[in-house]
Amino acid sequence: MREITADNLAALAIGAGILGTGGGGNPRVGMLTALQHVKAGAPIRVVGIEEVGDDAFATSVGGMGAPVVSVERLPRGDEPLNALRALEHHLGRAFTHLIPGEIGGANSMRPLIVAAQTGLPVVDGDGMGRAFPELQMDTFTIYGVPPTPGAICDPRGHVAIFDGIAEAQTLERYARAVTIQMGGAAGYAFPPMDAEQLRRTTIPGTITLAQRIGEAVLGARNGRGNPIDAALAVSGGRRLFHGKITDVERRLEGGFARGIVVIAGADEDEGRTLHIDFQNENLIARDGQGAVLAVVPDLICIVDQDSAEPITTELLRYGLRVAVLAIPAPELLKTPEALAVVGPAAFGYPDVAYEPMDGVFGVGAHG
Amino acid sequence: MREITADNLAALAIGAGILGTGGGGNPRVGMLTALQHVKAGAPIRVVGIEEVGDDAFATSVGGMGAPVVSVERLPRGDEPLNALRALEHHLGRAFTHLIPGEIGGANSMRPLIVAAQTGLPVVDGDGMGRAFPELQMDTFTIYGVPPTPGAICDPRGHVAIFDGIAEAQTLERYARAVTIQMGGAAGYAFPPMDAEQLRRTTIPGTITLAQRIGEAVLGARNGRGNPIDAALAVSGGRRLFHGKITDVERRLEGGFARGIVVIAGADEDEGRTLHIDFQNENLIARDGQGAVLAVVPDLICIVDQDSAEPITTELLRYGLRVAVLAIPAPELLKTPEALAVVGPAAFGYPDVAYEPMDGVFGVGAHG
Repeated sequence: MREITADNLAALAIGAGILGTGGGGNPRVGMLTALQHVKAGAPIRVVGIEEVGDDAFATSVGGMGAPVVSVERLPRGDEPLNALRALEHHLGRAFTHLIPGEIGGANSMRPLIVAAQTGLPVVDGDGMGRAFPELQMDTFTIYGVPPTPGAICDPRGHVAIFDGIAEAQTLERYARAVTIQMGGAAGYAFPPMDAEQLRRTTIPGTITLAQRIGEAVLGARNGRGNPIDAALAVSGGRRLFHGKITDVERRLEGGFARGIVVIAGADEDEGRTLHIDFQNENLIARDGQGAVLAVVPDLICIVDQDSAEPITTELLRYGLRVAVLAIPAPELLKTPEALAVVGPAAFGYPDVAYEPMDGVFGVGAHG
Repeated sequence: MREITADNLAALAIGAGILGTGGGGNPRVGMLTALQHVKAGAPIRVVGIEEVGDDAFATSVGGMGAPVVSVERLPRGDEPLNALRALEHHLGRAFTHLIPGEIGGANSMRPLIVAAQTGLPVVDGDGMGRAFPELQMDTFTIYGVPPTPGAICDPRGHVAIFDGIAEAQTLERYARAVTIQMGGAAGYAFPPMDAEQLRRTTIPGTITLAQRIGEAVLGARNGRGNPIDAALAVSGGRRLFHGKITDVERRLEGGFARGIVVIAGADEDEGRTLHIDFQNENLIARDGQGAVLAVVPDLICIVDQDSAEPITTELLRYGLRVAVLAIPAPELLKTPEALAVVGPAAFGYPDVAYEPMDGVFGVGAHG
């Protein structure tokens, strides 16, 4: 067990942004909210998965909706808390632990805020090891945790509770339909998990991993090396490309931000181009001839070429000078069951085979 | 208090179909289900609003979705019951009474089925005195009953519970979005009402009124007069037109069946045409020169010209020989508050003024 400090939060925001692979929303607003809680003396406790007792009863909390919405409409800050309370009311039982559904992006911070609001500890781990656009794309669901009961809540306190739904894709459809009607963004709480489910399905140590990536980047920015190399050293990734963004095509479809970004290479990549397709997150990176260089579930991260500051897809624009990093996916995302849900075919690329990268991501990183 | 008999059900199905003004779905499948319960010895009790005690706690139960869906996908039969149970679970309190949300169409029967399933009595009255396409178009909402908490349930047992929503239009948007994702039809239970709310907002006596209209029609079919005249005598309406359907334009938009039916006059209406716009229900009847002959909330009912069998909008087709009846709306639908919700402007006819018909509908009809 450790308590999250103000410095931890600053580092975590950077690391979670990088692991967000362009999606999951910017962690910055959530980080500032969590920071207020820490400064006000509300402790945010993080516990390793191995510290969780047999009587644990946990749920993931966070936000759902297109990140582009949250840029224009700030959350109130208590949406996930209200979703948690609605779910507890429905279950007639209180939760003992929280866990991030996705460590990538803004959903890294929301469980920490709810932890400060409730006093509940947060499990060091998550269900994605990155960010994904849909609810069912997490290891909880992939490895058989029932998706409901679950609750969503909007900034006006409007609550929808879902129950009796066996397929996470169905919950995803229902909850997203309501989220769109709620204005495009909502807080959520689901799925409820007992200790066995939590231990079996969690990608361990990802809060600490995100924090370490951020610490490495911040350390390098303060003169101890190159921020991008520092991020790669901790995450086990490699530099895929660097250059200038020359085109961004984007459209909002069914609550998702979809599009393509084109990057013209610089320096050693001069004369080449990279095309990245995204659906909230970066999904597939191809060279000018269409050859696949990296593909989901491996992480494709666009960062500022100097500071390694992560750049979310909604902030991509002409002229940004960026580096593109590829980071191997955690092992729990590489099984056949997982690839059926988060592999290239699941995102509309049936002809692209997933070729895993080598790497150490997700192994023994929790502390 | 009276117990519904098999004969009552047959009459009620006809009367509720006529009061459905083309919408609300066909009561026939629900009638057969209710009949099975009655034959199996499960009593269906109806109580007058004046018999309701001060400790009453009631909710409306029924089905929502486009009627055209229920023609192709039969309900399981326990969707409204499961919605009721989900709402009771959420409230931590059992209901003492049921009430139809709309007496017109299939939702006349569903509270009776739930009454047989639960043993709860049904209040003789409803929230529309007819059918309307949207949830918030009822007197419960118009006169200030909060719309939530409420629940919907689909044939697979998928449940969505809504809470914290002050505006019925918002509940309508959320619940309809989920209903569409559920396949277009769901059972519902809401709003919870105490005795004061129930007494103040219910349109009284409409179960009995629908039954009496049906009894008059059935009696006339058995040689005691003209079925259409019999229906008009009980309902206080008048014959607007009769002739042959020559055109039906229809489209399914956002879960609603919308369209226009054109009728060429016969006999005394020879040489004239009638155009009726519908959105699930018949909304406005105009002659060939565009003059308004009847308009919502007054009831525009298309029935078979010989038998007075009601014809729902999804069954309208070329060649049917029909009579068009206009029946005055109940008084609770004619106030300025009500017309803001169920008047012509609310249905997209801002230039049409509501001109009430004279009539006795809804007055003192309960028994």
